[in-house]
Amino acid sequence: MSSYKPIGLFDSGVGGLTVVKEMFRQLPQENLVYVGDNARCPYGNRPPEQVRQFTFQIMDFLMQQDVKMIIIACNTATAAALTQASQHYPIPVLGVITPGSRAAISATRTGRIGVIGTEVTVQTGAYAREIHRINPRLQVISQACGPFVQLVEDNDLDSPQAEQIVEQYLAPLKEEMMDVLILGCTHYPILSKLIQKVAGKDVQLISSAEETAREASLLLADRNLLNDNNLSPVHKFYTTGDQQHFTEVAEKWLQQPIALQHLTLP
Amino acid sequence: MSSYKPIGLFDSGVGGLTVVKEMFRQLPQENLVYVGDNARCPYGNRPPEQVRQFTFQIMDFLMQQDVKMIIIACNTATAAALTQASQHYPIPVLGVITPGSRAAISATRTGRIGVIGTEVTVQTGAYAREIHRINPRLQVISQACGPFVQLVEDNDLDSPQAEQIVEQYLAPLKEEMMDVLILGCTHYPILSKLIQKVAGKDVQLISSAEETAREASLLLADRNLLNDNNLSPVHKFYTTGDQQHFTEVAEKWLQQPIALQHLTLP
Repeated sequence: MSSYKPIGLFDSGVGGLTVVKEMFRQLPQENLVYVGDNARCPYGNRPPEQVRQFTFQIMDFLMQQDVKMIIIACNTATAAALTQASQHYPIPVLGVITPGSRAAISATRTGRIGVIGTEVTVQTGAYAREIHRINPRLQVISQACGPFVQLVEDNDLDSPQAEQIVEQYLAPLKEEMMDVLILGCTHYPILSKLIQKVAGKDVQLISSAEETAREASLLLADRNLLNDNNLSPVHKFYTTGDQQHFTEVAEKWLQQPIALQHLTLP
Repeated sequence: MSSYKPIGLFDSGVGGLTVVKEMFRQLPQENLVYVGDNARCPYGNRPPEQVRQFTFQIMDFLMQQDVKMIIIACNTATAAALTQASQHYPIPVLGVITPGSRAAISATRTGRIGVIGTEVTVQTGAYAREIHRINPRLQVISQACGPFVQLVEDNDLDSPQAEQIVEQYLAPLKEEMMDVLILGCTHYPILSKLIQKVAGKDVQLISSAEETAREASLLLADRNLLNDNNLSPVHKFYTTGDQQHFTEVAEKWLQQPIALQHLTLP
């Protein structure tokens, strides 16, 4: 079969590297191609039509790399383009919203699920829609946490200022008695220690990165596409933006050197 | 589509009701048909060929009920018959071993995974095989816990004697520094409080019941087979054994009355 083909992943920038790290951990035999569209980051405040256009440009490039599956490792692009992309491309396309939703449904005991994400992700209501499609009786409480992405991009993960921002944004959620909190942005797992500290130990954090890698594993197995050879896997990284900044963030987060190339999109 | 069709589930007895309970929680809109083969329980010490024969008899019956998916809610039957059953029937067939395996891979941080199950399940090495197919670098430590099923069948869940048995069987595992323990038998979630107490709070228990319901949710969504109508779902139960005993166990575990019929298999 075509199981030796790579899996394609992309994000507006470095956030999708949280999914890559989970792919390394949960599917260590898979070859990967990652695209970070840092030159046009962030996507979160762009019109959905433009996010779809960017998404299709990147997916066309990934198809040229002969990938067997594409993971949209970005909540905004998932919300804006997953449905059309799934219909347009002849390979499996996986977003990050349904895996996090399903994990939250499985984890909650109180039936009250919190979601934090960018403003666009919260405004589209994509998590609530996905959760209610499966179980309409659950309650979903959403909170936009705009500044969290910048904290991650600035690598400001545990300063008093960072803690103050996280406390300020999570305060409304803490009165909601939820027992599960979805990190609805691929940047947020990098900030998860601080989020857990502020949310309290009784709240279970759901990382869309971790859950997406897990569902990718199931879908590959279901289609008989798991890479079962024992050769060292090849991981290729592309950025549309500054290569030095991308390399620094990626190597720190992934804890290994990466092979990075520049990519120019139309 | 055929999304209103029921999902079929079966077990050698009442253990698969742990999967049913999770289906109620994670997929509350789905119609279910459950078969407990109590008259021929346990399966665990029978020749695999006979377990396969029983499995096909029950699955033929479920196909007559026009189910859209079948869940083999029994580790022994999964180990003995999943591969053949998946090839034989024209609908998706899901076992309980791969979901627990994938959840354990996702959960472990130390790379050391414990598995407890019946003797047959442990002897077949099905969990280790499944885990290593995805990640050969993980370590899997297995322990047969034969008497646990009887504790559950006897509803002996927290007596000093029960605790002593659980301590005795988990003792070898406690020296293994694993951080994740797969409950590799559908009976075990009923005993999970005691298992967690003995294993210690730093060990994360993986319930194959919970994980199987979650993967069923993903596979149904992937095939566009989720039941999205809002009618009250219908749940039918069949046992080949004593109806009064089955009803008592089922209604206590599921915390609701059930509609039970007797089933005679060839």
